[in-house]
Amino acid sequence: MSELRKDPITDRWVIVSTERGKRPSDFAPVPPPGKVALCPFCYGYEGKTPPEIFCIREPGTAPNTKGWHVRVVPNKFPALRVEGTLEREGIGMFDKMSGIGAHEVIIEHPTHEKRFWDYTVTEIERIIEAYIQRSTDLKKDFRLRHLLIFKNEGDQAGASLAHSHSQLIATPVVPKRVREELDGVARYYAYKERCVFCDILREERRFGERVVFENDHFTAFCPFASRFPFETWIVPRIHRAEFASLESREKNPLAEALRTTVRKLNEALNGPQYNWILHSAPSKSDGRDRWEDYHWHIEIIPRLTKIAGFEWGTGFYINPTPPEDAARYLSEEEGTGSVGIT
Amino acid sequence: MSELRKDPITDRWVIVSTERGKRPSDFAPVPPPGKVALCPFCYGYEGKTPPEIFCIREPGTAPNTKGWHVRVVPNKFPALRVEGTLEREGIGMFDKMSGIGAHEVIIEHPTHEKRFWDYTVTEIERIIEAYIQRSTDLKKDFRLRHLLIFKNEGDQAGASLAHSHSQLIATPVVPKRVREELDGVARYYAYKERCVFCDILREERRFGERVVFENDHFTAFCPFASRFPFETWIVPRIHRAEFASLESREKNPLAEALRTTVRKLNEALNGPQYNWILHSAPSKSDGRDRWEDYHWHIEIIPRLTKIAGFEWGTGFYINPTPPEDAARYLSEEEGTGSVGIT
Repeated sequence: MSELRKDPITDRWVIVSTERGKRPSDFAPVPPPGKVALCPFCYGYEGKTPPEIFCIREPGTAPNTKGWHVRVVPNKFPALRVEGTLEREGIGMFDKMSGIGAHEVIIEHPTHEKRFWDYTVTEIERIIEAYIQRSTDLKKDFRLRHLLIFKNEGDQAGASLAHSHSQLIATPVVPKRVREELDGVARYYAYKERCVFCDILREERRFGERVVFENDHFTAFCPFASRFPFETWIVPRIHRAEFASLESREKNPLAEALRTTVRKLNEALNGPQYNWILHSAPSKSDGRDRWEDYHWHIEIIPRLTKIAGFEWGTGFYINPTPPEDAARYLSEEEGTGSVGIT
Repeated sequence: MSELRKDPITDRWVIVSTERGKRPSDFAPVPPPGKVALCPFCYGYEGKTPPEIFCIREPGTAPNTKGWHVRVVPNKFPALRVEGTLEREGIGMFDKMSGIGAHEVIIEHPTHEKRFWDYTVTEIERIIEAYIQRSTDLKKDFRLRHLLIFKNEGDQAGASLAHSHSQLIATPVVPKRVREELDGVARYYAYKERCVFCDILREERRFGERVVFENDHFTAFCPFASRFPFETWIVPRIHRAEFASLESREKNPLAEALRTTVRKLNEALNGPQYNWILHSAPSKSDGRDRWEDYHWHIEIIPRLTKIAGFEWGTGFYINPTPPEDAARYLSEEEGTGSVGIT
């Protein structure tokens, strides 16, 4: 089992893989994979993954066989595991706990070659449904405090398998950056009696110059203090703390907003590598009710610049493309493709 | 001039290059540079950089000509500039200020091919002297609140020129991550009446299993909650907030500790790309005297793993090599080379 260790200076937690530690030779550069002979996420190879936890499949088909649209399976090499008890321990002045958590893979589509920007709105709606179902289920595990859904597209963005997938990691502590965002939201609320994301939405829609796409329920924009070139956020206009409380009628607009934004990024940047992160309130409240101030959203980060010493040392980012320019380039792209036609 | 913009949620500042914004086509992948015909950092090409700010050179040689050992010049494409006044402005709910600061390059050695691990102790002592001189000088500029010295080695680590160099960026605000570390140190001090770094040093030396190298003044170790495989810190055993207050007798031991640690990393990891960051107390005290709690040190981060969505979303790192293993591999390496022989 892996271990969670706490940095005594900044209270930052780190997951340390203690059982199969990588040796120096494991970091030797490997050539980028060509066409893989066997992809465990491919249609017809369902037996090559751990058994599915959740699946949207054709009526009458059996679990772990063909007939699926979206499959959720445990990560074969998980950072954290559901099995075991949460042990907390001090070692001298240092603190650690056992690596309890969940690490799941959402296999988004049966076809190996399709990227997210190739999907139809209906296909994306199914992926959203899988996210909601897994979030709702994992929330019941009292040991898990926070759940993160994210996507790594491309090897520079951290994807280890080319077949398009997203991931979910649930942790037994609320991570530092999440807590920081929650604190910022609470501070703003205490000062203004308003949600900072609702205010940002209002300002961005008023200025207009950083807005990339909009439908009746969602606005996509490049934020004023974008850390990265072409960083784009998708924010629901209805204030709601948790992603999993999304209403049925919002699923189609969310799928459309995601699809259009990712397609625009693809058209402007020609197949960029990227990450997206779904920011949602923690599942456990730590006895506090302030999470209701929070406003869930999605942050998309194209991986165009390198993170160097200055960024590591300060958390200060140097963004070479003003968000106003990025939004203008993205607005000029069609992005729609066959929206609505599913 | 670039702009500093503040994220309204987390108070994080970002430097936005507004004057020569990069277009989508500027991010197209470029092939790694081969042998460059003209390197502006090379011996004999002193006229290809902006005029030198500081230089250690042979007696009797003129500025911006041959005869130098270490040269400090302004960055030709600076993230921040010294010229101008610090203007602060609100735009609707958003905050920005002008991009005042300093961005300098420390050209470490006349020879293009030498890496840091090839330098003699004497050569490294000269580089340390340049860091001290520039830190002391920039501290006098009342607009600059914090100064970061760092090194990017390799293109994946953010280096844009192959000739070995380090950089210095001074900012008009104390960056968020720095403030976070300062807050952590102050919190620990308030609770224990002791410096957290002094306590960590004591614990690491008592356990021994994470120590990589040690001389009379410095200890190099892989920290208990290492974020990255083979992350190594070099910490002075004398408690001192600012790097620039280093005493003359400590320069040689620091050069030895840096050289040995970087050589060990090179031997274990076969020419790794890496960043190092010199963490020192901010130059301006913001009217507070608590910076004296701080303990300057150097953090070295080999770039062996990819930062993916999970890390961006949470600030939670997954480290596949336990620091105890990393320290054991590094201890087994010689690292000394021709230490002492200069």
